[in-house]
Amino acid sequence: MKRYWSSRIRALTPYTPGEQPKNRQFIKLNTNENPYPPSPLALQAISQRADDSLRLYPDPEAGELISALSENYGLDPKEVFVGNGSDEVLAFAFQAFFSPGSTIVYPDVTYSFYPVYADLFAINSRRIPLQPDFTVPVQAFLGGNDGVVLANPNAPTGIELPQESIRRILEANRDVVVIVDEAYVDFGGQSALPLIREYPNLLVVQTTSKSRALAGLRVGFAFGHPDLIAGLNCVKNSFNSYTMDRLAIAGAAASVRDQAYFDRQREKVMATRDRTAEELSRLGFQVLPSKSNFLFACHPRLDARTIFQGLRTRGILVRYFDQPRIDQYLRITIGTDQDMQALTAAMDEILHTGA
Amino acid sequence: MKRYWSSRIRALTPYTPGEQPKNRQFIKLNTNENPYPPSPLALQAISQRADDSLRLYPDPEAGELISALSENYGLDPKEVFVGNGSDEVLAFAFQAFFSPGSTIVYPDVTYSFYPVYADLFAINSRRIPLQPDFTVPVQAFLGGNDGVVLANPNAPTGIELPQESIRRILEANRDVVVIVDEAYVDFGGQSALPLIREYPNLLVVQTTSKSRALAGLRVGFAFGHPDLIAGLNCVKNSFNSYTMDRLAIAGAAASVRDQAYFDRQREKVMATRDRTAEELSRLGFQVLPSKSNFLFACHPRLDARTIFQGLRTRGILVRYFDQPRIDQYLRITIGTDQDMQALTAAMDEILHTGA
Repeated sequence: MKRYWSSRIRALTPYTPGEQPKNRQFIKLNTNENPYPPSPLALQAISQRADDSLRLYPDPEAGELISALSENYGLDPKEVFVGNGSDEVLAFAFQAFFSPGSTIVYPDVTYSFYPVYADLFAINSRRIPLQPDFTVPVQAFLGGNDGVVLANPNAPTGIELPQESIRRILEANRDVVVIVDEAYVDFGGQSALPLIREYPNLLVVQTTSKSRALAGLRVGFAFGHPDLIAGLNCVKNSFNSYTMDRLAIAGAAASVRDQAYFDRQREKVMATRDRTAEELSRLGFQVLPSKSNFLFACHPRLDARTIFQGLRTRGILVRYFDQPRIDQYLRITIGTDQDMQALTAAMDEILHTGA
Repeated sequence: MKRYWSSRIRALTPYTPGEQPKNRQFIKLNTNENPYPPSPLALQAISQRADDSLRLYPDPEAGELISALSENYGLDPKEVFVGNGSDEVLAFAFQAFFSPGSTIVYPDVTYSFYPVYADLFAINSRRIPLQPDFTVPVQAFLGGNDGVVLANPNAPTGIELPQESIRRILEANRDVVVIVDEAYVDFGGQSALPLIREYPNLLVVQTTSKSRALAGLRVGFAFGHPDLIAGLNCVKNSFNSYTMDRLAIAGAAASVRDQAYFDRQREKVMATRDRTAEELSRLGFQVLPSKSNFLFACHPRLDARTIFQGLRTRGILVRYFDQPRIDQYLRITIGTDQDMQALTAAMDEILHTGA
């Protein structure tokens, strides 16, 4: 019953996150979490702050984290925004830069939260079909819209759009904001970050949830021209003065400062990814070229939903999307080497038994 | 420069939170924080969770906290919503229950975030003047609007609206949602919570920031009919799947379960409040009757801004609002007995020296 619901929300279809199992222990390859723990320095920073100071509000500007990010990425603090997960950062960005009734463009196959944000903020969407090989048809993004949103590498395909294409899109959209959502960029992609000084219309969004193994802490950030960052702060300060708690600020700041650990873990994930891609290819899968911490794969012989169910029965969760164009694919998060050996063994069994 | 800002945000005036000093040590009586630490069980729960599991997303439904709240308050889990501070909960509620272009009512002197939310979501506001004694003119809230928002006890006055008045307002507004913001209710006020089963149009909003001394953790909640809670979840899941991090869920749940500690600390705050009110009256202040963890007071002889500055010079921060009707008042958070002795001593000095 929606008797008291506002006109705005009656028609919404919320985003559905991947399953978070509560009881049975699964090998969890379904929500693109990092298989390795966060930086020990992050855990230490959090423990140290779990003290009486929690009675006090956090710094509304999250200065400690802004400093860590601006120093690490060689930016001015005014070029950095932080929020409660990159989902919140993206929601603020849609609200800050895309006017109600305007039309934005993004690929038909991409992060499925974009259409949800658009609906929530009464923004029209024009969804551009990816090419048959799931690459972005750059030509279709060269103007005639009120904003552009691109996940790069894209999800759930894992495919990277080369920087020269990003540049072409920025060049052709100088009057509107181009959001490049780089949730997965740390696994071998090239960040558009160096372009923010050249293009005041570019907002780069990143997260600590994947490459920094802090999905449970909810910290995302955005980099861009100070005018864009000011716009995000305007929305934030009209919504919640303190979006980030004291522990998230401290933990994320310590994580960002631990570059050596960060580099070591993501190298491990990339190596495992490339080995797993080979294994899956050997089993007859078509595996899209991934610059992320997941693989997107289909098998010419066996239905994706059947494989999904077969894996689930064997205690392995992957992500299946019941959506046009991608309903024969599975998105498989990269776990530890052991996880991925269990996966390929289970796949082998399913392919031989048919379930 | 707002070149890229959406039409929605160009005209916004964000909320201004109280000062959070970074360097000098102040006696901080300006943002209604609790002077006592959070429950030791909450701190312990947080430390225990500062571990490898942070690599995983939180439970998107925050089940552990929902359970703790529903058990503690004798509710069904479907009657409970949790969010990243009561500010976020309020923002979601405005979006969920008040349609763009509709008109809501709230007092002219109240939590100054309400007009900001209204602007953000394109809702019209009719601000009802409080009576000269700062009580709510109930008659003006009995219909002819598309929604009602009441802080009870009100901020920054601290005055409680009796439950029979709340009931009259609910009765006269059966077709629209009435939000009762009870951020301060645990300091001696009567909660409207028992009325939610009688009035499916009632949403009660509370927070762990004041009475549970967890301002730094950012946890708020709402109680209401399952249809209202579903509306809040619809907005939340269209905005950010995981608004609450693992540490906030665990810490707040432990805090809610520690009723004995909660009762002891709020009793202490109330006792100090009543003693401080007497002291200030003795110094000639007019002190409004408070059911909160702050006092709202003015002095017939000395300008509020002068007192504010005098206190600041003496290392004591209180809150001054440069707003019509209340610019001769100071809002003074209740600290420890020692804090309040320092305050009254400083007041005494200021009254004698005039600055």
